[in-house]
Amino acid sequence: MDNELTKLRGFREFYPDEMEARKIVFDKMREISTKFNFREIDAPSLENFEIFRRKSGDEIINQTFSFYDKGGRHITLIPEITPIVARMVSQVKNMPMPQKWFSIPKLWRYEEPQSGRLREFYQYNADIFGSKSVYADAEIILLSKSILNNLGLKDKYIIKISDRYLAENILKKEGFENIEEIFKIIDKMEKIGKEKTKEILLNVVGEDKANRIIEIFSLSGEFDHIVNKIEYNERLDYLGTLNDILKDIDYGKFIFDLSIVRGLAYYTGLVFEGHDYKNEFRAILGGGRYDRLTEMFNANIPAVGFGMGDAVLELLMKREKVWPEYKRYLDFFVVIVGDFQKYGMKIIKELREMGYSVDYDPDFRSIQKQMRMAQRENARYAIILGEEEYKNNNIKIKDMETGNQETVPFENLTLILRKYNLPKRH
Amino acid sequence: MDNELTKLRGFREFYPDEMEARKIVFDKMREISTKFNFREIDAPSLENFEIFRRKSGDEIINQTFSFYDKGGRHITLIPEITPIVARMVSQVKNMPMPQKWFSIPKLWRYEEPQSGRLREFYQYNADIFGSKSVYADAEIILLSKSILNNLGLKDKYIIKISDRYLAENILKKEGFENIEEIFKIIDKMEKIGKEKTKEILLNVVGEDKANRIIEIFSLSGEFDHIVNKIEYNERLDYLGTLNDILKDIDYGKFIFDLSIVRGLAYYTGLVFEGHDYKNEFRAILGGGRYDRLTEMFNANIPAVGFGMGDAVLELLMKREKVWPEYKRYLDFFVVIVGDFQKYGMKIIKELREMGYSVDYDPDFRSIQKQMRMAQRENARYAIILGEEEYKNNNIKIKDMETGNQETVPFENLTLILRKYNLPKRH
Repeated sequence: MDNELTKLRGFREFYPDEMEARKIVFDKMREISTKFNFREIDAPSLENFEIFRRKSGDEIINQTFSFYDKGGRHITLIPEITPIVARMVSQVKNMPMPQKWFSIPKLWRYEEPQSGRLREFYQYNADIFGSKSVYADAEIILLSKSILNNLGLKDKYIIKISDRYLAENILKKEGFENIEEIFKIIDKMEKIGKEKTKEILLNVVGEDKANRIIEIFSLSGEFDHIVNKIEYNERLDYLGTLNDILKDIDYGKFIFDLSIVRGLAYYTGLVFEGHDYKNEFRAILGGGRYDRLTEMFNANIPAVGFGMGDAVLELLMKREKVWPEYKRYLDFFVVIVGDFQKYGMKIIKELREMGYSVDYDPDFRSIQKQMRMAQRENARYAIILGEEEYKNNNIKIKDMETGNQETVPFENLTLILRKYNLPKRH
Repeated sequence: MDNELTKLRGFREFYPDEMEARKIVFDKMREISTKFNFREIDAPSLENFEIFRRKSGDEIINQTFSFYDKGGRHITLIPEITPIVARMVSQVKNMPMPQKWFSIPKLWRYEEPQSGRLREFYQYNADIFGSKSVYADAEIILLSKSILNNLGLKDKYIIKISDRYLAENILKKEGFENIEEIFKIIDKMEKIGKEKTKEILLNVVGEDKANRIIEIFSLSGEFDHIVNKIEYNERLDYLGTLNDILKDIDYGKFIFDLSIVRGLAYYTGLVFEGHDYKNEFRAILGGGRYDRLTEMFNANIPAVGFGMGDAVLELLMKREKVWPEYKRYLDFFVVIVGDFQKYGMKIIKELREMGYSVDYDPDFRSIQKQMRMAQRENARYAIILGEEEYKNNNIKIKDMETGNQETVPFENLTLILRKYNLPKRH
């Protein structure tokens, strides 16, 4: 095929089987979200570029599919939905709070495609607006864990939690000033390793301090472990409460890990990530509290949320063999041999009106080919209509699993189906 | 709000109630598609612009959100999904035929927004690949009608059917040569009226012939009426069979209408549109047969399909008062008064694990505020936990519909709920 006509790199096509597997995953996300009383929303895929520039700075232009439209507007395919959701909640007057929303938009990022990273992907997002409570933070983490657990990943992931204020407080107490800069360096530590991180820090703060920073941000483990290693600090009370709630509910493993800073400047307070327990893949999910984001929309609404792309999730679920294997079936395939299309179409219509999924060969090829098509479509029953059957006002029903078939009078299809007591299985 | 931060014109945000209504509509489309054995697929939202240029010509650039990406590729947000689906079916070797696929992608068109026309919209699409049969044509029309009927629109629309070959044959018999040109002019007749169309035709073919063309393309009505007005022509046999099938199945009103030519050059054979019976809106849906589209992907797979955008559909459903009015409810709202969060969270966890949708106020405000939140979230039951209840190991359950409440021992929540026999209603 001509190169100009192929799919773009980093983009995906979903054929029916893949689509159905993905729908099972997304529907599970919807089900769990509903249990937690989150409601689904949707937003434009194209937005003014300025929204993302204000949130993330000028560099984001290199990571977006942004362009000037025919009206001269600088617009972009959305690389994330969070600021758009923040706008939606900000622009409605007297919106009662809290609001709990989720969405599963497509997102686009102009990055080099690699394992778990695509240029076009779906991302599950959930946010709670209007509450600063640690119980809102806990609810978001519990939601993320409940979704993973219900996707068959219980014990296959670990949630790593930190707190921007805690890290800030520690750094301040130790006399550091360029905190944002240090966060940015630490954010890359997992990717580039401690040695490399130290090298970079050396140039910024000198050797002693570099060692101390690495030490602080390497703190990781259960809450009690962390508490014992840090001088008292009011944010430990907050983390202690969070720890109690998460321990009580007990939805699976979590630790506190100060290396989780999530470079994005807009987080305030809680930050967390979900990681594969074997640490083979990039982070599965990430989120935190961002109480100041709605300020750009002239509002002042605290918020906490997280996002989870479908690419890493799929890799992990496939490795753990819990990615849905969906075999679609059809209730009836109607085989029509000879000139009985009119009669056949009537049967098809009746079956569909009864709620069954029904198909037939629009080309009415040989009985062998039609039976092969019935098999390919995974039909539960084949209904065979030929001259013999037609003459005697009969139909032949073949059970495609057992191979049994019987000829029955076609007087009242309903009665026959009641006898078969066939559930609708599509 | 700053102008650069607002939603773009012709784009939509969907808040929870609107989203849920839309999901009901889309899920109904999915259900009917499955009954007809169509399977859902999905495709990239960004593609090489060349694909659409080859299908629709250079002019399409003005109607697309197309741009050059950072790698210098001329790409576009997809204005339709048909050629992408055609590629998907073409590029798989030995794909068994026929294939019946549907999708509900977002599409983007750079057009002036107006009633029923947006720059970003959803479009339901369905296609049958691999069959040239009139029964495949009928199946596609029946699917479109079944979806409209099941959305509550039975008798509120009319399907108008024509055939490109029939119109061509008539024009050829009458000695016309510039058939494509005439089609393009006729395609606009409904919008600009017969008088204006005649004026344009005058300059192309002269007065007599202009009158004759208008006469031919004004033919509209039941099949028998059309047959009597046209000299015999082999395509009448095809239309006769189509007419018989559609009449037998009887899914609602359809007529033959030669003014339906659907300007797009790529249609071969059947063309059809769905129109509001009051003719207040633009076409609800449109489609036809396009047997040559896969040639650009080096394949030769006949196809028939249609597309239906969500904007006109919503206008029509709202006018007919069948747009879903969804009031979302919650099974339980847990009201926690005093220092019993720990106890409350345990109840919430248990209820959610039993499958119920449950919410609570993360800020544990006054009992009045929490009860108001329970009401706002349309909770079926409120569970109230206060000092009194806690001391006696009780919970209070309030039926939010009747206002009845009772205090019951909290020993086994399951038993209590069994007594209430409460269905899960989210």
